[in-house]
Amino acid sequence: MGGTALPRKELFDLPEGVIYLDGNSLGPLPRGAAERALGVIREEWGGELIKAWNSADWISLPKRVGDRIAGLIGAPEGSVATGDTLSIKVYQALAAALRMRPGRRVILSDSGNFPTDLYMAQGLIDTIGKDYELRTPAPDEVAEAITDEVAVVMLTHVDYRSGRMHDMDAITARAHEAGAVMIWDLAHSAGAVPVDLAASHAEFAVGCSYKYLNGGPGAPAFIYARPDIVTDVQPALAGWMGHDAPFAMEPGYRPAMSTERLRVGTPPIVQLSILQQALSVWDGVEMADIRAASIALSERFIVEVEARCPQLTLASPRDAQARGSQVSFAFEHGYAAMQALIDRGVIGDFRAPNIMRFGFTPLYLDEGDIVSAAETIEDVITNELWQDAKYQTVSRVT
Amino acid sequence: MGGTALPRKELFDLPEGVIYLDGNSLGPLPRGAAERALGVIREEWGGELIKAWNSADWISLPKRVGDRIAGLIGAPEGSVATGDTLSIKVYQALAAALRMRPGRRVILSDSGNFPTDLYMAQGLIDTIGKDYELRTPAPDEVAEAITDEVAVVMLTHVDYRSGRMHDMDAITARAHEAGAVMIWDLAHSAGAVPVDLAASHAEFAVGCSYKYLNGGPGAPAFIYARPDIVTDVQPALAGWMGHDAPFAMEPGYRPAMSTERLRVGTPPIVQLSILQQALSVWDGVEMADIRAASIALSERFIVEVEARCPQLTLASPRDAQARGSQVSFAFEHGYAAMQALIDRGVIGDFRAPNIMRFGFTPLYLDEGDIVSAAETIEDVITNELWQDAKYQTVSRVT
Repeated sequence: MGGTALPRKELFDLPEGVIYLDGNSLGPLPRGAAERALGVIREEWGGELIKAWNSADWISLPKRVGDRIAGLIGAPEGSVATGDTLSIKVYQALAAALRMRPGRRVILSDSGNFPTDLYMAQGLIDTIGKDYELRTPAPDEVAEAITDEVAVVMLTHVDYRSGRMHDMDAITARAHEAGAVMIWDLAHSAGAVPVDLAASHAEFAVGCSYKYLNGGPGAPAFIYARPDIVTDVQPALAGWMGHDAPFAMEPGYRPAMSTERLRVGTPPIVQLSILQQALSVWDGVEMADIRAASIALSERFIVEVEARCPQLTLASPRDAQARGSQVSFAFEHGYAAMQALIDRGVIGDFRAPNIMRFGFTPLYLDEGDIVSAAETIEDVITNELWQDAKYQTVSRVT
Repeated sequence: MGGTALPRKELFDLPEGVIYLDGNSLGPLPRGAAERALGVIREEWGGELIKAWNSADWISLPKRVGDRIAGLIGAPEGSVATGDTLSIKVYQALAAALRMRPGRRVILSDSGNFPTDLYMAQGLIDTIGKDYELRTPAPDEVAEAITDEVAVVMLTHVDYRSGRMHDMDAITARAHEAGAVMIWDLAHSAGAVPVDLAASHAEFAVGCSYKYLNGGPGAPAFIYARPDIVTDVQPALAGWMGHDAPFAMEPGYRPAMSTERLRVGTPPIVQLSILQQALSVWDGVEMADIRAASIALSERFIVEVEARCPQLTLASPRDAQARGSQVSFAFEHGYAAMQALIDRGVIGDFRAPNIMRFGFTPLYLDEGDIVSAAETIEDVITNELWQDAKYQTVSRVT
C-alpha cells in the first residue's frame, strides 16, 4: 500500500474544463485506446483478413482480457471469461446456479439491485416455466432472508443508486451455510474497490468493463466461475465458442473443461482490443491504494457539499467502509440540477426519482477537482441555476 | 436489375496481391470504417463522455443499424434489432418460438446446420428441463419431417459447408401448414443472396454481420421478428435495453412494444458504428444485381477449377439456383492445399473433414480475380505444392 502514484491523469484523454464524476457509468478514454483500435482495424482486420484469428491471436483475446480482469478482482488466472453483456452473464450464472440446486425454487436478490439483473432472473424463470420465485427483500434484510429454500443468492456488491456496499465475505458465508449458490455482480466494484473473489469462496461473479475499467461504450462483460466447480457448470447458452473443440464442428455440444465454457458466440474483437488497452492503466496499481484515495476523495466531497448545500441530503452510507466508490445526494430537483452541473463541466448523473450520483475514480481525479466540483454544485444549488427552463426537459437517457 | 455498377473495389481496403474468397467468413475492411471508429472513440467517447448516449444518439444506434439491415433482407423498418452474437439471437428466437407453441415438443433443424445453432437449441432444452427434442434430419428430408409435433423449424438458409440453399418460401409455407413457427438463420444469406423475409411470412430470422455485410470481427448480430407477432414474443433474455422504459429503472420487466424487446444489454457502440459505416457500401446496390454477378463468378469458377483440377470434387449444388454465394470442393488434402493457397494470396478457408470453401462477393471480386485464383489452385494441386511440410500442421482455427 502507498506504492501507487495517483492520480495518473496523463493516462487518459479528458476534455479540457471537465471534472468527470461519472466514471461509474462510462469511464473516460484511456490514452492509446484509439490507436489500438486503429491498429486492429487497419493492420489486423484490413491487412490480415481472416488470417488474423491466428496471426493476431484474436482467438485467445477473450481469455487474455479475462486474465487481466481476474488480477483486479482476486480471481486466479483462467477463471474469468469475457464477452457479451452483463445481462447475458447474469443469465448464464443464474441458470447454472439453479441447475446446481435442483430441489430449491428461490432466487434471492435485493430490492436495490440494478433492474437488468432482476429482469434477467424474471426472464429465466419464465423460460424454465416452473414454480421458481424471485425474492427481493430490502438490502439490509438479505442476510436473514437466506433460508434453505434459496437456490441462489444474486446481489450487486455496490448499489448503483446509493453506493451502499454489501459485506461480500459475510453474505457469501451465510449463503453457503444455507446451502445456496452465491453470485456477485461486480459492475460497480471492479476497478472501484478491492475484491477478493477467491477468498470469498463465491461460486460466480459477473461484471461489466465500461465503468471503472474504462473499456468504452458497450465494452464486453465478464464472468467468473470458481475453478473447483467449473466442470459442474452446465451452460444454458451453449455457444460454439464455449465448446471444447469449436472448430471440430461436432454436431453435439460438449463444453470446454474450463471457464471458457461460459463463452458463447464470436467475440467482439475491436471492443475487446480497446478494453485490453484500457486495462493497461492498471499496471503497477494496487487496489488498496485506489481504495484509500477513493475514500479520501469521497469524504472530502461529502464534507464540502454538506457545508455548502444544506438543500442536498446524503443518500449514501456515511460510513466510508460501507460505501463503494460513489456518493449520492437526494435533491428534489436533482434532474435539472444535474443538467445545470453538466453544462458547467461537472459531469455526474441522475437516477430516478431524485438521486444525483457522483463517482470517484482516483486514477484521474484529485482533491482539487473535488473542491472545484463542490464549488460548482454550490453555485448551481444556492443560486437555483437549475431553474433555467433548458434543464427541465427530461431527455437524458443514461 | 442491371443498375448496380460492379465491382466496387474502391470501397474496400484490400491488401495488394490478395484475391479474397473468404468474405463468407470475415468480410474485408470497408473504406471509412477505421475513420468512423476513430471518430466514435475520440470525438464521441473521448470528447462527449457519458453525454454521447444522447448527443451522438448512441441510444438509437442499434435501431438505425437494424433498419439498414432490414432493407437488405426484405424486412420492414423497425422489424430488426441488433446486438449480441448470432448464438444469442438463435436462443432468443427459439425460446420465444417454443412459448408460442406450448403443446409441442420438437425443434426441427437439419444435420447440416452450423453447430452453434444446434448447440444453442440443446442448451435451451437442457435449461427448460422438459421433454423437448431436437431433430436433425438430412437437409433434403426436412420438408417431410415437418409434422404436427414440431413446434419450431430452425434452418440456416445457406449451408455453411456446401452452400446448398433451402427454398425459403416453400419450407416456411410447409412449416405454417403444420402449425410450426419458422426461424431462418441468414448468416450466409444477408448481403449474399436476395432475401424477402416479409414475403416468406417467417416469424423470425437471425444473422450475423461480419460475413457478407463486412461489419468486422465480432460485429453485432441481428434478429427479425414479424411485426404482427412481435407483441406475442416473450423475451427469454429479458434485458433492460429491451424494456419499454429502460431508464425508468422499474423493478419489473415490461417488454418494449416493438422488436426492440429483443435487445438485451448495453449495445457495443464502437462495433455498431463500424458496422453502420460498412453498410454504406450497399447504398444504391440491388441484391438482384449482386445475385446475378455472384452466379456469373461462381459458374466461371466451377468451370475453371473442374477443367484444371480433376482431383477436386464439387461439393456444392451444381445448379446455381440451389446455391448461395459460395462454392465448395472436396479434396482429401484440402487443409494443406488451402494453406498453400493462402500462402500464395488466394484466401479461402477449410471446413472439416475435407471441404475447401470459396466465397463470391461481387462487391470486390471480378472475373479476372476468379481466373487468377483458378490458376493458383491449379498450380497448388497439379504440382502438389500442398505437400510442403509447413502446410501440414493443423493450427488454423477458423
